[in-house]
Order: sequence, then C-alpha cells, then structure tokens
Amino acid sequence: MAVRQDLADLGEMSPKVKARIEVSIVIGSGARIGPDKAALLESVRDAGSISGAARNMGMQYKRAWMLLDSMNRDFRQPVVKSIIGGAYAGAVLTGFGKDVLDRYRRIVAAAETAAAGDLVALGRAALRDADPKV
Amino acid sequence: MAVRQDLADLGEMSPKVKARIEVSIVIGSGARIGPDKAALLESVRDAGSISGAARNMGMQYKRAWMLLDSMNRDFRQPVVKSIIGGAYAGAVLTGFGKDVLDRYRRIVAAAETAAAGDLVALGRAALRDADPKV
Repeated sequence: MAVRQDLADLGEMSPKVKARIEVSIVIGSGARIGPDKAALLESVRDAGSISGAARNMGMQYKRAWMLLDSMNRDFRQPVVKSIIGGAYAGAVLTGFGKDVLDRYRRIVAAAETAAAGDLVALGRAALRDADPKV
Repeated sequence: MAVRQDLADLGEMSPKVKARIEVSIVIGSGARIGPDKAALLESVRDAGSISGAARNMGMQYKRAWMLLDSMNRDFRQPVVKSIIGGAYAGAVLTGFGKDVLDRYRRIVAAAETAAAGDLVALGRAALRDADPKV
C-alpha cells in the first residue's frame, strides 16, 4: 500500500513542471516587492484591514504591520493607508498600491509564460540521474 | 555648485527606467538560483577556478565555495566540479551547471522584455509626487 502510494505520487508528479520562478520588482533606491509582499497587499485589499489580512495569511499582526510600514517608507508614495487610524483600524490599498500589485501580477504572469519552456526543461534536467527513491 | 550637481543628477536619472526585476529559479524541493549564484557560476566559467571566480567578484573564497557547495547539494546533479581536487584546484561548470546558467540568463532576458512596459510605468508612478529634494 505504501509502495502503491509512492508510485501514485510519482505518477502525479512526473508530468508537472518541477521548476518555477520567483520575481521581485526593485524600484528606485532598492525598495522591493516580491511574492510575500504582493500576497500581503492582496490580503489587505480583500480583508479591508491589516489585522484581517494578517489573520487570513496566518501571519502575526506585527509582522504584517512592519512589512506594510516598510513598503510605505521605501517607496515614494504609500501603498496602504489607514481609513480610520489606530492599530486595528481598517486599511485599504492606495491607488499606487493597487497599481504596484496589478503590475506585479502582470509581470509575473508574463515572465512565467516567457519562461515556461525553459522551466520544464530545467525541471527534467534536475531530475535526470536522480536517486530513484526520490 | 551643489545645487547644479543635484539638478544634473536629476536630469541624468529621469529618463532612465527606475524599476527592474530580479528573478530566481526554484527547482524541485526548494533549490534556487538567483542573480548572485548566476553571477558566481559565470565567474567560475570565466576564471576556471573557485579562487579566481571569488577574486574577480570581490567575494571571499569561503563564501564562494559555500554557495557552490550548497548548489551542488541542493540540486540532484552538481553544477560545478573540481578538475584537480583540493581547495585551490581548477573548477569548471558541469553540463548541468552550464544548462542552468544558460536557461537562467534566457529566462531573465525574456522576463525583462515581457515586463519592460510595466517597469517603466512603475518607475514613473513611484516618482510621482516625490519629494523634489529626492
């Protein structure tokens, strides 16, 4: 049964792409948006508050707050603004924050499309001669 | 003179793209190649040794060795091999290492091309309403 499960896993995994890309945007003097910050911006947009965004991501409130605060400081415009004030107030993306998020998602999608063939080949190459138990 | 210098800097910077992307390839269980490791692979290829590669990059030998060793362990095939043995021996990229490097460069180029329009717009958006002293 254990062996059958292993084979099933292999069968399910082998046609999948085994390599992927991660993209970060670096703006100006080094401010950057990568997968984690993009996911947090999305979570704020959907939750309407920093505390809700953190909760939905399983992230500590303090960490979410610090990431958003660092983005607001790093860029020359804020990406998130409080709509009432205070720690647990509502929060929304600014126009610039929405713009950054939309463009980040579009850049990632375009990069993934452009990279697809090489990623499949790299995944295969990384597996060649692999330990058959893996 | 100081003011003139500031204006000259602004004039030189404003037509440039102010945003760029950084791409990492993540293979299999989490092994990754980003800009630094790709530059190191290139440096080994050009220098023919780890010590030469590190020297050319202004990187400590120990750090270069550790990055290459971690790549050799992370992936299921080595990316670099010693051609004599011992710490200061010659080193060359394996076929897999060359393949990873070539594909990394191609993926980055394709991603940059795909992202170009959004990066220009993001650079402009990040500058809008900026402090005129910045």
